[in-house]
Amino acid sequence: MATTTHLHLPNPIPPRLHASPPARLRASASSLAHPSRLRLAAPRPRPRHGRRAMSVTVRSSLIDPDGGALVDLVAAPGRRAALRGEAEALPRVCLAPVDVEWAHVLAEGWASPLRGFMREHEYLQSLHFNCIRLPDGAGVVNMSLPIVLAIGDREKEEIGASPDVALQGPDGAVLAILRRVEIYPHNKEERIARTWGTTAPGLPYVDEAIAQAGNWLIGGDLEVIEPIKYNDGLDHYRLSPQQLRNEFDKRGADAVFAFQLRNPVHNGHALLMNDTRRRLLEMGFKNPILLLHPLGGFTKADDVPLPVRMEQHSKVLEDGVLDPETTIVSIFPSPMHYAGPTEVQWHAKARINAGANFYIVGRDPAGMGHPTEKRDLYNPDHGKKVLSMAPGLEKLNILPFKVAAYDTVAKQMAFFDPSRSKDFLFISGTKMRAFAKSGENPPDGFMCPGGWKVLVDYYNSLQTEEAAVATV
Amino acid sequence: MATTTHLHLPNPIPPRLHASPPARLRASASSLAHPSRLRLAAPRPRPRHGRRAMSVTVRSSLIDPDGGALVDLVAAPGRRAALRGEAEALPRVCLAPVDVEWAHVLAEGWASPLRGFMREHEYLQSLHFNCIRLPDGAGVVNMSLPIVLAIGDREKEEIGASPDVALQGPDGAVLAILRRVEIYPHNKEERIARTWGTTAPGLPYVDEAIAQAGNWLIGGDLEVIEPIKYNDGLDHYRLSPQQLRNEFDKRGADAVFAFQLRNPVHNGHALLMNDTRRRLLEMGFKNPILLLHPLGGFTKADDVPLPVRMEQHSKVLEDGVLDPETTIVSIFPSPMHYAGPTEVQWHAKARINAGANFYIVGRDPAGMGHPTEKRDLYNPDHGKKVLSMAPGLEKLNILPFKVAAYDTVAKQMAFFDPSRSKDFLFISGTKMRAFAKSGENPPDGFMCPGGWKVLVDYYNSLQTEEAAVATV
Repeated sequence: MATTTHLHLPNPIPPRLHASPPARLRASASSLAHPSRLRLAAPRPRPRHGRRAMSVTVRSSLIDPDGGALVDLVAAPGRRAALRGEAEALPRVCLAPVDVEWAHVLAEGWASPLRGFMREHEYLQSLHFNCIRLPDGAGVVNMSLPIVLAIGDREKEEIGASPDVALQGPDGAVLAILRRVEIYPHNKEERIARTWGTTAPGLPYVDEAIAQAGNWLIGGDLEVIEPIKYNDGLDHYRLSPQQLRNEFDKRGADAVFAFQLRNPVHNGHALLMNDTRRRLLEMGFKNPILLLHPLGGFTKADDVPLPVRMEQHSKVLEDGVLDPETTIVSIFPSPMHYAGPTEVQWHAKARINAGANFYIVGRDPAGMGHPTEKRDLYNPDHGKKVLSMAPGLEKLNILPFKVAAYDTVAKQMAFFDPSRSKDFLFISGTKMRAFAKSGENPPDGFMCPGGWKVLVDYYNSLQTEEAAVATV
Repeated sequence: MATTTHLHLPNPIPPRLHASPPARLRASASSLAHPSRLRLAAPRPRPRHGRRAMSVTVRSSLIDPDGGALVDLVAAPGRRAALRGEAEALPRVCLAPVDVEWAHVLAEGWASPLRGFMREHEYLQSLHFNCIRLPDGAGVVNMSLPIVLAIGDREKEEIGASPDVALQGPDGAVLAILRRVEIYPHNKEERIARTWGTTAPGLPYVDEAIAQAGNWLIGGDLEVIEPIKYNDGLDHYRLSPQQLRNEFDKRGADAVFAFQLRNPVHNGHALLMNDTRRRLLEMGFKNPILLLHPLGGFTKADDVPLPVRMEQHSKVLEDGVLDPETTIVSIFPSPMHYAGPTEVQWHAKARINAGANFYIVGRDPAGMGHPTEKRDLYNPDHGKKVLSMAPGLEKLNILPFKVAAYDTVAKQMAFFDPSRSKDFLFISGTKMRAFAKSGENPPDGFMCPGGWKVLVDYYNSLQTEEAAVATV
């Protein structure tokens, strides 16, 4: 099923068809990096209108959400008071901040067709196969991260045989009801090993959300009482998949390419985003829209915090490095697992639900250093390889890109050329921080001045904080 | 594609069609344990014969091998001398005993459609998705264990840019050639974590075949020079998938149900095998054949060795506990991983290739105790659950069974009844050994006397050995 909007009109009108790939698309697909992987959706049939049609279904031709329909688990406003009343009588489960982020993710349909925290049959499929079978032989959808809620022995006992439980946020307010619950063992070791491919101590998400969590998982159908907000001045950036789809429609997008990031945008990123747009135009798309989609949930302590990143991204658009006309900046509310090839599938899958049909993937996506050994935790090429093989992601066009670095000869960010590797400078987060600390500017052309200033201010505030801590 | 045999006959004859499920099969399927899982193959179309047909394709209706055709990697006798000559000039890789077992498995097509040790794209799919995509959108086949060959730095260097390598057995003789090789990193930690769901020290297969193995994996197309034999007096039991299919055909099997085991057969096993046959007959099959299929490759030190098990199984058939007319005993040449829900998929998938369309699965298949904690390594129910969800196994009918134990009231092995659990006695391998050691017999009806005697002799020989070691 495609996304549909019902309009009540006096007479049938021809449907607006966005994004039907131009006829010459297939022929020119080879201009992209991995042409063999390019599977562009066949043009969708135009909807048929009966003679009696007084209401017309306008079909968007954005990519279908997983499972056919976008899940929306937020209760209608008229139901909310009743739900709060009902919750009073239910056993309660307290959510940690990361659990709230997952409830948010589920509620807005990023994990469509999932309708709540996983029951065991979903958890096992996710853990073993990174995908979940749809009913009635309708294939599989990708689902690489277990989206689960842990509870302890005491909570399990309190829930007893109650079919439903109330979920309470860290501030004590009831956020949601979980219905027809199923409680099953939380084998942390197995979950961690199969998700991360290691059980080494020091995995940020494990430390934050698993190590201290309870020994049971509780799954069920989620009903969120009202949209989840953070009141951090950034909620207007948190567009739901449906809101994004509406925006892409409004702009008349005929292709949407998503860029996931959790770091400041430098000119290397901008280079590849602009290059992708150029290639999509060459392929015959008339209006490719970039979804610049920073991750907004839990990140590890040494990542640049979300408010700083959002300010930095704004400057990048203000400074004209990216074109605001063809770019949508929005926050992806998921927490970060740092689970490399397993997690990058989740990052891609969630963007399908938001309407993206092209996904940009770079070196070592969702990777990090091994927590106890001096090496990358994942082979940096595995992310894009696994993504190109992942069950349920066949309809998404994967755009792998060469890594960009500072070309000291051309004095600008450029795609890395291994034949003259000594001309290139890789500027890591650590190096950026060192520049800011010493008051030195990074090389010209590394980042737009407005964006760099945001980072300098942030790193300086860190030093001030550190100094303050040191003198206490 | 079904298994086909080309017969040259003067005139077309009607094909022999085994195993077309009787018409009333679907209706009566509910007599089996998990009817929702039962997906019986639709009757296959009868082959069409052209008028000019002087050669007739006789189609067996045994379940299709994965990928459509059974892989056979053993060189034709006429090629063997040339291959040996060719191998002389090639770089060599030395195989450990477990590697030889995998070469055997691959050569006979147990892992069809795999044609050799995995290249990286196969390895990654196996590790992350437990299945491998077929070309041209033809779906997936299950492939839950990485079937890989490890080499060290020195071997990698010696191979250099050679496209082909010779594989040498532990006795120094060249067994096979691996062609168009690909060498890629062997990230042991990630392989172990994703395969076993733990990285705890003490996993038997890891200790035997991974811990000391090289840091590279080498994949390629395998060509085995001649059928692999062990000369242990048991080779006649080692029927290839094709030989088994021929045998099922010869016996006119219309259903084949496989029972994987690595332990002595007691009357509880016999109960469920006989019960399965009864249920298949009730479903309308006329001639269900049991494939009693003990695993013959690497097992852990405290498992009963293969020769003892084979002797014990013979006695079970001699004593009439199982019916020799409807039972085939054969050795499955795979080594054992003890990887629980991940491994049970391999056990089931390999039996599809041998023609089995029903697979019996019990409690905690391929499981063991956690190597460092006092608990089962796997949730004992996960094996059958994961098997029922596994991609690529949809065409196999999974038959989960209740665990059997000694019913002290009825004085026989019976399906465990949790409502009177205190009446049941579970007799583990450790307990059997204690019985044998003390000269005590297990309760009447636990195992046929001939089979028990084989075990008593084995356990006594162990005691003698231990005593000898202790006095040295």
